[in-house]
Amino acid sequence: MNTGSSDSPRARTTLLMGFHCHQPVGNFHSVLRQACATCYGPLLEELARFPDFRFGFHMSGYLLEWISEQEKGIHSVLAELASRGQAELLTAGFYEPILSVIPPEDALEQIGILSDHIRDISGERPAGLWLTERIWDPGLVPLLHRAGIRYSIVDDNHLMAAGLGDRDLNGYFITESRGLVMALYPISQALRYATPFKPVPEALAAIESAGDGAAIVFDDGEKFGLWPETFDWVYGKGWLRDFLEAVTNSETITTESFTRYLEDNSPLGRVYLPPGSYFEMAEWTLPPRDARLFHDLHSELERSGRGPAARRFLRGGLWPHFFIKYDESNNMHKKMIRISERTLRDPIPEARRHLLRGQCNDAYWHGIFGGLYLPVLRNSIKRELNEAERILDEATGVPGPRLGDLNADGRNEAEIRSADGIVGITSTGGQVYELSDKRSLFDLLGTLTRRMEHYHLAATEAREDTGEGVATIHEAFRSMDEETRRYLVYDRYPRYAFIDHFLPEGTGIGDFAGGNFSQWGDFADGAYGMELVGEGVRADRSGTIRPEGAHAVGLALEKTFTLDERRLRVGYRLRAEEEPGVPCVFACEINLHFPSATSCRAEMDGMPFSLADVADTGSGRVVSVRDPSLQEALTLELSRPAMVWSFPVQTVSQSEKGFDVAYQGSCLVLRWALDFAGLKTLSLDLTLAF
Amino acid sequence: MNTGSSDSPRARTTLLMGFHCHQPVGNFHSVLRQACATCYGPLLEELARFPDFRFGFHMSGYLLEWISEQEKGIHSVLAELASRGQAELLTAGFYEPILSVIPPEDALEQIGILSDHIRDISGERPAGLWLTERIWDPGLVPLLHRAGIRYSIVDDNHLMAAGLGDRDLNGYFITESRGLVMALYPISQALRYATPFKPVPEALAAIESAGDGAAIVFDDGEKFGLWPETFDWVYGKGWLRDFLEAVTNSETITTESFTRYLEDNSPLGRVYLPPGSYFEMAEWTLPPRDARLFHDLHSELERSGRGPAARRFLRGGLWPHFFIKYDESNNMHKKMIRISERTLRDPIPEARRHLLRGQCNDAYWHGIFGGLYLPVLRNSIKRELNEAERILDEATGVPGPRLGDLNADGRNEAEIRSADGIVGITSTGGQVYELSDKRSLFDLLGTLTRRMEHYHLAATEAREDTGEGVATIHEAFRSMDEETRRYLVYDRYPRYAFIDHFLPEGTGIGDFAGGNFSQWGDFADGAYGMELVGEGVRADRSGTIRPEGAHAVGLALEKTFTLDERRLRVGYRLRAEEEPGVPCVFACEINLHFPSATSCRAEMDGMPFSLADVADTGSGRVVSVRDPSLQEALTLELSRPAMVWSFPVQTVSQSEKGFDVAYQGSCLVLRWALDFAGLKTLSLDLTLAF
Repeated sequence: MNTGSSDSPRARTTLLMGFHCHQPVGNFHSVLRQACATCYGPLLEELARFPDFRFGFHMSGYLLEWISEQEKGIHSVLAELASRGQAELLTAGFYEPILSVIPPEDALEQIGILSDHIRDISGERPAGLWLTERIWDPGLVPLLHRAGIRYSIVDDNHLMAAGLGDRDLNGYFITESRGLVMALYPISQALRYATPFKPVPEALAAIESAGDGAAIVFDDGEKFGLWPETFDWVYGKGWLRDFLEAVTNSETITTESFTRYLEDNSPLGRVYLPPGSYFEMAEWTLPPRDARLFHDLHSELERSGRGPAARRFLRGGLWPHFFIKYDESNNMHKKMIRISERTLRDPIPEARRHLLRGQCNDAYWHGIFGGLYLPVLRNSIKRELNEAERILDEATGVPGPRLGDLNADGRNEAEIRSADGIVGITSTGGQVYELSDKRSLFDLLGTLTRRMEHYHLAATEAREDTGEGVATIHEAFRSMDEETRRYLVYDRYPRYAFIDHFLPEGTGIGDFAGGNFSQWGDFADGAYGMELVGEGVRADRSGTIRPEGAHAVGLALEKTFTLDERRLRVGYRLRAEEEPGVPCVFACEINLHFPSATSCRAEMDGMPFSLADVADTGSGRVVSVRDPSLQEALTLELSRPAMVWSFPVQTVSQSEKGFDVAYQGSCLVLRWALDFAGLKTLSLDLTLAF
Repeated sequence: MNTGSSDSPRARTTLLMGFHCHQPVGNFHSVLRQACATCYGPLLEELARFPDFRFGFHMSGYLLEWISEQEKGIHSVLAELASRGQAELLTAGFYEPILSVIPPEDALEQIGILSDHIRDISGERPAGLWLTERIWDPGLVPLLHRAGIRYSIVDDNHLMAAGLGDRDLNGYFITESRGLVMALYPISQALRYATPFKPVPEALAAIESAGDGAAIVFDDGEKFGLWPETFDWVYGKGWLRDFLEAVTNSETITTESFTRYLEDNSPLGRVYLPPGSYFEMAEWTLPPRDARLFHDLHSELERSGRGPAARRFLRGGLWPHFFIKYDESNNMHKKMIRISERTLRDPIPEARRHLLRGQCNDAYWHGIFGGLYLPVLRNSIKRELNEAERILDEATGVPGPRLGDLNADGRNEAEIRSADGIVGITSTGGQVYELSDKRSLFDLLGTLTRRMEHYHLAATEAREDTGEGVATIHEAFRSMDEETRRYLVYDRYPRYAFIDHFLPEGTGIGDFAGGNFSQWGDFADGAYGMELVGEGVRADRSGTIRPEGAHAVGLALEKTFTLDERRLRVGYRLRAEEEPGVPCVFACEINLHFPSATSCRAEMDGMPFSLADVADTGSGRVVSVRDPSLQEALTLELSRPAMVWSFPVQTVSQSEKGFDVAYQGSCLVLRWALDFAGLKTLSLDLTLAF
């Protein structure tokens, strides 16, 4: 119990400060080198000059491994700080996974790896856990208990939302689940904004405002040198040295380790936190119009003086809503879960290590950073997962075809494999959503669908708005130029492969690429029956074509998928009740994702065309694409010549620097006149060799 | 996939209807008999007359066991309905626990018991789970998966809050956790209000508004005969028969089992639900002023047309907040958890059965029903838990004294036991919070603290308000009469035993009972150091007395607690730095809870007094209370005569019928002039024999 001492003239504040340093798995080495030079290195060296300044420190595994090999100097400073007790190292999932969405066995192993590292560095196993993206889940308590964790770190507004709105938050709180307890330290938002951005005296005043309690802050280490303009401020102008000097010389502030504070002080109270994270995250998880509704309601309540109540009771979506918002994230996540199940059955250490690397959170979601929108991050995760798949398939044999709810959406998916490839097929549209090459470890079906984002919406509305007041809300808009806005196109269907369209004869490539076309069939997002047939999969649907100006025609569409080494064969069979009364085009859409983006060399029947352009390449039978990063060219062979369109799929996403236009993939549209020539059956064979 | 048939003239709605029947463990047999006569019996018999009407049914374990013994007729009707496939029986935790707050092993066993019962009755293990109090927790998915559950039932506004605000809710949704899927059916609020309260044609119209989807309702069976005035409406006026006739004759409505619907139809979408329950529950979990803030914000948004957004994004507290709001609930819950741990180590079936009965939810919380405020329910839970303790202690030996964070509040508690008793001591105030008699299975420390509730606040404010608009919000107030309002007294400290007060000499019994007194000491809620000494516990605190008109005096207070068979001895030792400068009274407060309330016979030194009155009984050495329901009298012996006050502790709580004033316990206040007589040490011995 902190009874306080009434005879001390001034209250003594305990500063509990921590730094969290992270780089996503697969990030460019050049980025890591720069981060070490401008941030991690100078930060640790400056801290080392003030041995009385105690602090907490967390570094995620990909970065820690890289530093221990590539930046041994930085690693040894860290080890010195930890072993002399100045730095208290916190654990986490080693490769910075979101703990609540990975299997508990994996979470324990991830934490165990970093805890072992920390014991090797500091001589002690850590008692504290850095909570990745501060995504709390009450179900974590028993798991963290098993991992020996005594405390973790959350946001102050997270605690406010849990019913501690008006309470003193300068200390720690106890949460529990089924009798197991854990301590939670709330990060002060005011201190997050003050360090290192406010002048040192202001930062000190913010610390002292905690009175005789604890002033708590634990934030991105990258704010100390890597974030725009911070290098000059923190080191050039000397903010950090001044700050450390002022704190260590202060008579009113003392620093302490989080664990020691826990031992010496009683909790401020008890709390049960809902699952969630910082306030903005709850907005990002929502679909765009809901995000706006949420944002507007919040702003309105803030303006009308109901801000405190709003902060406590307004809650947006949960983190797993990203799995609903982005099918690509869900498919990647469920592939990861399936691999985890396999590695738990067949525990091959190398496969498990790649699996754990493939759990790194950044590519699974999107907020203020690019995240999922960055092909390099998605490709890195898939590379790790496919490496695990390759190792498992080689060790335990290539599994036979599977049918079941593989991505946990309540509908069937199928998977077929060869020694070289993995093909995933969804019953919605009977489409291929994954084509992973186990040699290159690359998923050729990795195109990201173009979706509306709430910041697009803000841009569009602001354009239509007459002014007054909107500008301040939608600051983002002001930086989106006219050129970028032209890329704001949204897809009607996920950008998978073998999407079946029935189009009016006159549909143009521009209309199709822009999503402004008439869809006469109900196949592109219709439910297909699926069954395993031998080593392949048959998908079929009895649907309808409803041409404008003619009556509806029933049509049975059957696709059989077989994978033979590096060749995916898709056999189409269409049977109509009768010929459609007006000219109709059957279009098969195939979206392909290439690591080198538009610098690939594409040809149709030997004639080159550019993947960077919207291209009507005429009619042909063989399309090939050679990506300089891939060993094999990709070839698409058709049993019947098709008219072919090609266009790039590009997205607009926000990042910490503004708006990015990114190449996500190339759309090939193969078209045939729907003419049964009296036979009532139309057969087509497509072969995709990779 | 439900593609619908375009040639049917009218859409055919599937009615998925269910009945949930529950009585809390320990409820009076007379209540159960009446419920069978006016509700469960006639409901099932009426349903049996319409074999084409398919429905879901859940009955909790205490009621089911009672019916199988006491109302065999009703039980056989239920068995007949289930075995002919008309009724689909849903499982749940057998004794209706809140699944997310009991240990997973216990949850699985609870579900297993009811599932076994259902298999015995219907021949099939259930696929559906009735979710107690509809308290969802994402962590339940893996657990329910292990229990073989395919679907559960939640509220429509729960799904709306999860981001499905504008969506069609006439069907089921898929949720998942780490790749494990479960289906969730949303209960339509409109249908809950329509059945059985609206005329049959209106109820049918509400069903038909689901179009060709599913109209879903699953609600308390007690609405069919047991709720006020429903018996006459449902059976006397024939609502139920008319409804069943209309539905079974309808050409637009068909009934189905929940499981069959799941097999024949695709999900409407995917969803991730935050933990929580119906909207009102989130309000009840909050402290009273927060509940008002939440309520007002919600009302304001509804009035200003932001209702839909408010329903989606406004969220109150989590169910476990009841553990913070009510220490009594927390202590009971953590006792239950500790017993569970013991029974998992020493699996004695009889002890586990009592443990599981002690997990019944009703007494652990308070909303619109009395719940925690009803002594009969709390006593029933404690009886079950103490029976488990007794069996375990007899089988494995009485455990020695324990010191640790027994109730998961981040502070120490101690527990000492004898063959007959269990004593729990908290370091906050060094007080006894549990005194369980293993023979009577009764906890003599079961007094409930008098707390402000949000509906009290409404009453107080309305009294002070000038009018306009308030009356409609606080309808509850209108039924609270002046007499009841006099009981609105709030306690400054939990109503435990051996609470140490230092009071001005002139403090009167009325002031003390009403909480209007000067507290000169910092012992009543101060932190005590605690340690185990031999078979007992020593609690001590160096605190301060701050008398008005004199300077502060340091005072060391030590209490030693020992339990010998049926005698709890508390030895007090007070050491002051000096005599207080003004007359000061040391008062030891002991609150005792008796099963027969104020009909006990109380005496001091042989002179009777009434526990029902505020009584200044003068000075004495022996207080005894004889409760007709307890075999042994309770006797309190003092080593020095004390001045004694006695008054009843009574609460005002809401229930479905209005406001209840309930006797919760009797407060005894033992007072001595704080006079060290030059010795600087004051010793007192108190012995509580039970």
